[in-house]
This record gives sequence, C-alpha cells and structure tokens, in this order.
Amino acid sequence: MSMQSNSSAEIIDPRFAPVADLLGSFAKQDPGYSAQLAVYHAGVPVLDLAVGPDCTLDSLTGVFSCSKGAGAMVMGLLVQDGVLDLEAPVALYWPEFAAAGKASITVAQLLSHQAGLLGVEGGFTPEELTDSRLAAAILAAAEPVWSPGSTHGYHALSMGVFMEELARRTTGESLQQIYARLIRIPHDIDFHLGLPEELEPRYTNVLAPLQGPPAPFMDPFSLLGLSVNSTAGFEGPEGPGYDFLQIPNVRAVRAGGISSLGGVASARGLARLYAAASTGIQGPDGSIAPPILTAATQAALSSERVFGADRCVGTETAFGIVFMKPTPSNDFGSWRTFGHDGTNGALGYADPAYSLGFGYVPTRAEEGGTASRAGRLSTAVRQVLLAQ
Amino acid sequence: MSMQSNSSAEIIDPRFAPVADLLGSFAKQDPGYSAQLAVYHAGVPVLDLAVGPDCTLDSLTGVFSCSKGAGAMVMGLLVQDGVLDLEAPVALYWPEFAAAGKASITVAQLLSHQAGLLGVEGGFTPEELTDSRLAAAILAAAEPVWSPGSTHGYHALSMGVFMEELARRTTGESLQQIYARLIRIPHDIDFHLGLPEELEPRYTNVLAPLQGPPAPFMDPFSLLGLSVNSTAGFEGPEGPGYDFLQIPNVRAVRAGGISSLGGVASARGLARLYAAASTGIQGPDGSIAPPILTAATQAALSSERVFGADRCVGTETAFGIVFMKPTPSNDFGSWRTFGHDGTNGALGYADPAYSLGFGYVPTRAEEGGTASRAGRLSTAVRQVLLAQ
Amino acid sequence: MSMQSNSSAEIIDPRFAPVADLLGSFAKQDPGYSAQLAVYHAGVPVLDLAVGPDCTLDSLTGVFSCSKGAGAMVMGLLVQDGVLDLEAPVALYWPEFAAAGKASITVAQLLSHQAGLLGVEGGFTPEELTDSRLAAAILAAAEPVWSPGSTHGYHALSMGVFMEELARRTTGESLQQIYARLIRIPHDIDFHLGLPEELEPRYTNVLAPLQGPPAPFMDPFSLLGLSVNSTAGFEGPEGPGYDFLQIPNVRAVRAGGISSLGGVASARGLARLYAAASTGIQGPDGSIAPPILTAATQAALSSERVFGADRCVGTETAFGIVFMKPTPSNDFGSWRTFGHDGTNGALGYADPAYSLGFGYVPTRAEEGGTASRAGRLSTAVRQVLLAQ
Repeated sequence: MSMQSNSSAEIIDPRFAPVADLLGSFAKQDPGYSAQLAVYHAGVPVLDLAVGPDCTLDSLTGVFSCSKGAGAMVMGLLVQDGVLDLEAPVALYWPEFAAAGKASITVAQLLSHQAGLLGVEGGFTPEELTDSRLAAAILAAAEPVWSPGSTHGYHALSMGVFMEELARRTTGESLQQIYARLIRIPHDIDFHLGLPEELEPRYTNVLAPLQGPPAPFMDPFSLLGLSVNSTAGFEGPEGPGYDFLQIPNVRAVRAGGISSLGGVASARGLARLYAAASTGIQGPDGSIAPPILTAATQAALSSERVFGADRCVGTETAFGIVFMKPTPSNDFGSWRTFGHDGTNGALGYADPAYSLGFGYVPTRAEEGGTASRAGRLSTAVRQVLLAQ
Repeated sequence: MSMQSNSSAEIIDPRFAPVADLLGSFAKQDPGYSAQLAVYHAGVPVLDLAVGPDCTLDSLTGVFSCSKGAGAMVMGLLVQDGVLDLEAPVALYWPEFAAAGKASITVAQLLSHQAGLLGVEGGFTPEELTDSRLAAAILAAAEPVWSPGSTHGYHALSMGVFMEELARRTTGESLQQIYARLIRIPHDIDFHLGLPEELEPRYTNVLAPLQGPPAPFMDPFSLLGLSVNSTAGFEGPEGPGYDFLQIPNVRAVRAGGISSLGGVASARGLARLYAAASTGIQGPDGSIAPPILTAATQAALSSERVFGADRCVGTETAFGIVFMKPTPSNDFGSWRTFGHDGTNGALGYADPAYSLGFGYVPTRAEEGGTASRAGRLSTAVRQVLLAQ
Repeated sequence: MSMQSNSSAEIIDPRFAPVADLLGSFAKQDPGYSAQLAVYHAGVPVLDLAVGPDCTLDSLTGVFSCSKGAGAMVMGLLVQDGVLDLEAPVALYWPEFAAAGKASITVAQLLSHQAGLLGVEGGFTPEELTDSRLAAAILAAAEPVWSPGSTHGYHALSMGVFMEELARRTTGESLQQIYARLIRIPHDIDFHLGLPEELEPRYTNVLAPLQGPPAPFMDPFSLLGLSVNSTAGFEGPEGPGYDFLQIPNVRAVRAGGISSLGGVASARGLARLYAAASTGIQGPDGSIAPPILTAATQAALSSERVFGADRCVGTETAFGIVFMKPTPSNDFGSWRTFGHDGTNGALGYADPAYSLGFGYVPTRAEEGGTASRAGRLSTAVRQVLLAQ
C-alpha cells in the first residue's frame, strides 16, 4: 500500500473502517458537508478518504493556521541543525528585535505566544502581510502589549512573521524555500506554502458556513482584533473587505503561502507531513524512513510551554513551540501530540504515543474543538488502536 | 456644544444617532428600565441621554465600584507628580503595612488586586468602613489570605481603603479632598466622592431588579465574602441588613464617598471624568485642554498587571493599576482602555484608541459583561467610529 | 450526646433540623438515592443521619479520593512532629526522586499537584498500585510531564503513592499503620485505610448511577488518562476492565486501603476525622480533647498553594498540601476549609471558621461541585450557624 500525493485511490485499512463509517455518517447527515480525512499509522497510510460533493481525494484547499504546523517543522529543523537555540534571546539572531524593551525575550517565548507582539493598530496592509520582512520590521520596533512572560495569547498572524524572520536571519533562505527543499519535495507532501500555478486546477475554494448567527463584533483594537489583523483589507473574490474565511481563496495569498495562514493542502498532505516528521514514512521497499525530526527535537517542540485562558481568544489554549497541545476542551490527542488546527475546522497532528499522522480538511468551514468532527474522528482513530 | 454638570439639554451628535436608538430600544422593551448614557469623543460631548421614568439627565445615583475609577485617577496624579512610585514597597509610605510578612508587597501589586488582603472575618463595622483609617490599621496588621503575587482576586472593599491610605500617607490630604480639589472642581465633573448636602435633591435611589432568582448563598468567610464584607451591617432605609444594592441609598454612605463604592454620579459625570483624564475636554474657546493624566501616566495605569480566573469572583478579570481592563468575556473597549464598572451595571471608561470617554448609569441595577446593555452600547459607539 | 463508631442512633441537634429536612427531601425526590450525612460542631456531633434503602447509619462504603484527606492527616502529623519539612526537596527524604531533573522539587510542590508525575504510559499494574513501593520506584525515575511549578493538575493516583513513600522514608512505617496507630484507633474514627476482615459485613457496594450519558472517551495517554491510570485492569466483581466506580468494591483494594482512593468510611467517620483533627472531640467527661493538628499545622496544610484551571481535569481547582480548597465553582466552605471529595460525590472537610467537621457519603455515585447534594448540605449547615 502506498500513497502518492496525486494518487486518487481511496484507502481504508479494514481496522479503521469504523472511522470511515463515522466520516460517512457526517456526510449522510449533512448534504452541505464535504471533507477529506487521511491517517498514517506507523508510517503507513491507513485511511485516505473524501466525502461530499465539493471535494475529491485530490482537492487542495486553504488550511489556515494548520500552516503554522508546516512552519514549525522548519523551526524544528533549525533547532535540530543547531542554527537556532530555543533558549537564546531572539535579538541574538534578529538584533532589531531588542528595541522597546525586548532584548531578553527568548526564541521559545516568542514561538509559544508569550511575547505580546500581536499586530499593529490599524492593521498590517496586504503588502506588509504578503512580504513578511515588512511586517517583521514593524514588529521588531514595537512594544509588547503585555509584559512578556506574564501571560500568553494567540498570535494569529504575527507567529508566521516571527518564524519567517527567524528562518531568514539564521539561514538567509526563506521559510517557504526551506520547507519545499527539505520537507515537501523530498517527502512528497501535498501541503504547500506557496501553491505553484500548475496545481491551481486542484484548488477548491474554502466555502463559508451555510448558516449560523452573524459573527459578534470584533474590536480591531482589542487584543484579538490586533492578533487577527481585523482591519486588513484583503481583496477577496467578492471585492475588498475582511472575511477571514475568504483569505486563501485569493490567488495572491496562496501563491505567497505565508506560514501563519496561507498554506494549501489536502488531508493527505497534512497527515503525511506529520507522519514524515514523527514516525517516518514507509518507502517502496517496505522500510520506514527515519523521521524528519529526531525524538529529541520532537520532544523539544512538543514540550508544553503555556497553558490556560488565552489572553486573546479567551478560551483555554496550550502551546509548545508553535504547535498546539491538546487540552481538556480541545482534546485531540495524547499528551505527546503536536499539531495545529485552522479556523475552518481543519486539523493536522502527530501523536507519537499512537504513531499517528492525522489530517482532516473540511471544504466548508466548521467549528473546531473536542466535540467537533475533527475531534470525533481523532477519537475514533485512537479507539481503534486502543481496542487492538 | 458644551456640557455643564447641571445642564439638562439632551445631546445627540447625529453620527451617534444609532447609539441613541439602541438606548431607546432598551427603554421600549422594558418599562422598568431607566438609564443615563453620556459619551465624549475627542474632548467633545457627543451623547448625553436619559431614558425611562426613573431618571433625568441630571439625576445622580450610586455607581458602586465605578467609584474606584475616580480613586484611581488620584493614584495617577500621585504617580505623575512623583510622590508615589508604583514599584516601591507599600511599606515605604505606610510602615505598619510591613507587618505579617508584607514588607515586600509593592504598590503595583497592592493596587492590582494581588495582595490577598480582602477583609476581616466577621466583617468591618460600618464605622471602620466609613473611616478608612480604621480599616487601614486592621488591614496593615493582617496576614494575606494567599501568597502575594501567586494569584489575583477582586478586593471589592479594601481597594478603596488602600487608595485612601496611600493618598493620606503621601500627601497628608484625604483622597476625597485631592479628588475634589484637582479633578472634580476644576474640570466640573458631576461625579462625587462625598455628595454635598445641597446636591441631595438630585439623588435618585438605586433600584433593585424587579425580578430574578434569589441571590445564591455567599459564605461571609469565603474569599468573596471577605472581599465584599458580606457580614457588614449597613443600616439601610429598610432597616439593618446586608443588601449591597442599598448601600449608596444610605445618606451617610454617599456623604462619606468611600472610594471603593461610595461614589455618586451621573453618566455625564462618568464620561466627563474619563474624557478629562485621557483626551482633555474642549473649553469655551474651542480648544482642547490638556488631559489630567499624561500619555505616560495613562499607559502606566492601564498597562495590564493581571489576567485570568479571579480568585474571589471566579470569572475572568484583568486589571492594571486599580482600573479594569477589557477581557474576552467583558469586552468593553480596546486594549488601551481603562475603566471600571459597578455592581449595578454602571460603566465608565476612557478608550484612548478611540479618544472616548464613556459613562453609563442604569437606575435599576442590572447585569454587566459583554452582552450587557453597557457592553452593547459601548460596542455601538465604537462601531460608529469605525464606520467613518 | 455521644457518637460511637458503631452506634446506630440517629442524631439531630434541633438547630440543624433544616439540614436533616434537606437530606430527607433528596430521598423523597429520588427513590434510587441513599446517603449518610454526619456533622460535628465544636467537637460535638450534631447530625448523624442515613436515608434511602441502600445504607444505614453503620454502612461503610468506598469514599475514593476522600481517602487522600486521611493520608493528608498523616502528612500533617509528620510536619507537626518535625520529621517532614514542606519546603525541603523531596529528594532529601527520597534520594531516588532526584532522577530526571527532579532534584529541586519540594515536598510542598509534590503534595500540591505541581510535580507533573501523573502516572506511566500504559498504566500501573494492579500490583504496582496495591504495593505503592513499586509505583514509587517508577515515579522516582520518571520525567515530569510539565515543567514543575509551571502549572498544576490533579494527581489522582500518584498522590497516594507520594504520601505513602514520604511516610515510609521519614518513619519506616507505612502510612496506613501510622494512620491507624495515631489517628483512627485513639480517636475511634470509622474511616479505614485498609478495611479489616471483621468489618466486611458492614461494607456496602458503591452503586453506579442509574442512568446518565455514557462517559466520554478518555485517552489513556492524555494527562487525565495518565492521572487516573485509565488502562489499569482492576479485576472487578463483573470481571476485568476499567470501571473506576467499581474499584473499592474489590475486596483486595479495600483491604489494602491505598491512600489515593482505597479508603472505606461512613459519613460519621469522615466528619469525626475532620473534627478530631481541627477542633478536637468532646470526651465522656464533656471536655473537648486537643485537636490532632495544632492551629499552626492546620494553617500550613490548608494554606492555598495553587489555583486555576487544572491541567488534567480542565475545571478550576485549588489545593493546599493534598487538601482541596473551596473555589467559586466548588464552594464547599470558608477560606479556612480543608477537605477532599471523592469521585462518587462523597465529601469530607474541616471548616475552622465554623468549627465544623463534615462528612457526606452517597451510596450511589453522583456529581460533586457547588450545586451538588454535598454542596447544598454544606451550605445548609453553614446557614444554620450564621443565623444564630
């Protein structure tokens, strides 16, 4: 059994049939539902599925903050190669960052949502967001909105800027180039930070929820508003305006592939990325390749740095280095898990306790969290393995 | 357009008509509802409204912990004048405070609800509360109920005692005198810490909610019980007993004007206080006066010191120096906002990101929080400014 | 009025009749309900009641984590006798504990759920759990799952292991022996860590809830799963499997009496333990014996060490040394209270602010928390005393 990034054959390892059934039941219950699910176990694909009218196994769509997981893999390689020290001050690599009292903020603090550098009042312009060097220069000069280390809050957009600047400063290369060269291409991973023109035919628009209450007011000058850059005027297909869910539907955004939210993937790409990073993937000769990240690097990245009520989002969050950790209210894996979700309900993670790589991508945006479809599918996968 | 503290002309800047309409809709939906709303923008009054049968534009009523905002302005002046150092130990100014292991507690910790000096078992007597020197002597000798700095919890009554003692110790003058001399009188602010006899005819009783479930049991020996002094026997109009909402309806309480909860104001007074402090107010010649607090002082006071589940109240709270900060569950302004609410649902704040001074005073006590009337009015005001 | 551990006479001090009525109303409303309630005030029994078909005044049943309260009393004696220093490193008494970076973890951190030594992946075996020396050896070698001191989370099973190992290391005697010799026997307390064969006839099985939704999936590799050892295969009366509520119904478990959850008690035993420890108990001559723990020891144990969202459980918890503290969402007593509940809804505590010893044991497992039956009974008891 093998899984190429453009294969279009469904995969169902019979052990995981209950998971496939659960996914099928979602589609039966909701005609507006379309989604992909892919799972690797011990380096071998055990599920590769697509349901609903709006996607196929080969569809690619925006995965929003799941992109941070791909960026975090690059941070992991830099740590593993000794060019980035998590406990060093950011300013060691990025001298301008020392401005405004930030000389002692460490890389680990910056990459675990503790720095309080959420954005700028008035919002970054699309240009500043697309070219993260511009955003980085602004953030380097800025004063934190909270005393670093005193709390944590989700840096929805600036986290990508930080990762990209650290990649450039330590290697001279862009995060997107490193990702493609060392991770995506050699491991044949269908998860793109910067979608090439030739793959555009496979792109499927992120669909808005069919119904639901109007979004509550978000003050662009609140901490959450700063974090998500809520005044940014992305020029969407339906004209300018701020509709977060439309962002990756803009060709320029997915061409740039910013690591905060510009990634494009299939569920297969998500699952394969996490499997390649954590367990390694089975090759044509049946052997399992070494994982991209050593066990020590995985532990360093997945070790929890912060937990509690998120200063920006309000609900409970936990983070290691960039990666999200499961919490009681978003319980997507074991305590060893590292992954990231997206605002559309997509989820990708590695769970070393189960030797899992997991990817789930709904075409129509939906809610996340433990009770979500992603959460229920993740639970079902683990229950299969526990019952053996 | 000018607004005197005794003017009785309604003000509706046409840009803010949607906010006036929202307030009007509250009154239409609820015959038992009466409230005042006042807003300054860039130093100019843009709304001054009263709705419902139980108040007029000129009514004054109890604003409970909004009083802490007036007290905090005095703390700000002391900091600005260099007589109070937020990072100094409290005991530098108040030597008796060093007792019982409190020598290293800083002014900033004390004034951001971190000291764990909530009250006394059995409650302060009315005398001790009315003369804060008596309460201060008791609190100075007391042992904190938690290890200072380990958590934070709302000091509902003792916060006023702390502010008043720090004012006396650093200036020899009472907080109420300083407030009147430097803030209320020169800036003509209809917000009184100590209501003069001659203004009594304008006082309107705080009204109890018409219905609602009985209040849950509050153990007077719990942290919240200590914080609100729940055994205190204020002699209310209906006899002795502990009905928190009746406290300012006692003449002696509002005559004393304790800064924890004894203030009396109109919405106009609240809005004007915050505008005078943050943007400055337009004078007769059309120029805007300098704000009472410099930008640096505003930043020092409004910089967030604590965030998270409140040890006394249970829900999420955030505080700078005395002032409340908006949180995801009580989202009344931008991250630069500083203000305070009252247990009756009143709210006053300055929002430097919008150049706003805001005051809302319901005559009949109601709930606070993001979804409250105060929260919805605050949102509506900001939406007007964002849409321009 | 006296209360022997085998007396079967109901006790209702007339002042507390409203509490008896409340308990009776629970039984009237729910034919499946059986429970015991006992209360000491100022060293004198004021309530000793049993309602429902499934228990009598003399029934003994499993009280789950209420057992930790009995263990904590032994820790208190060790502290009081100067053989255990709460601020010393654990490794001073237990050298093997210094492994894996744990040399500086203090006794107080270990005993207040801060160490992050929850369990082992795959679960302890029944043998390792029954003989806590085996579990202790495994935990001593383990690496914490979080950075000690960075957060806290409920150590459901390992807390007993810690207490038992500290008892052995500092005295050479088992915690169970110390408990029996210094606490249970001299004070005639009907709360057993290790139920003697001759008392088996009084044992009443813990009954499962009659209905309710199926328990949500608990990942055995999650932090909560590790904490409760969710893969452990206790051999229950209905065969092997993991039904937490059946654990004490296994004779071997209650014979061993592990201090994390193997205790067996009547409500009378719970109340008498806490009264003996905090106020002392009235003897035949009418005098009140000195309490087992001095006021200083009680303060040291009950002083709150941690508060906030529990990393394992998700909800808000607060702990002193082993003992649970009341929180806004589980408000079972004054700020001086120390006690512990059990997963079956049992509750025991001392409340020095009210001179109370309280014990409540439902025969059929039910929910805990402020709104629970235990919480309502606790409130009713305090209301009686406050109304006097």
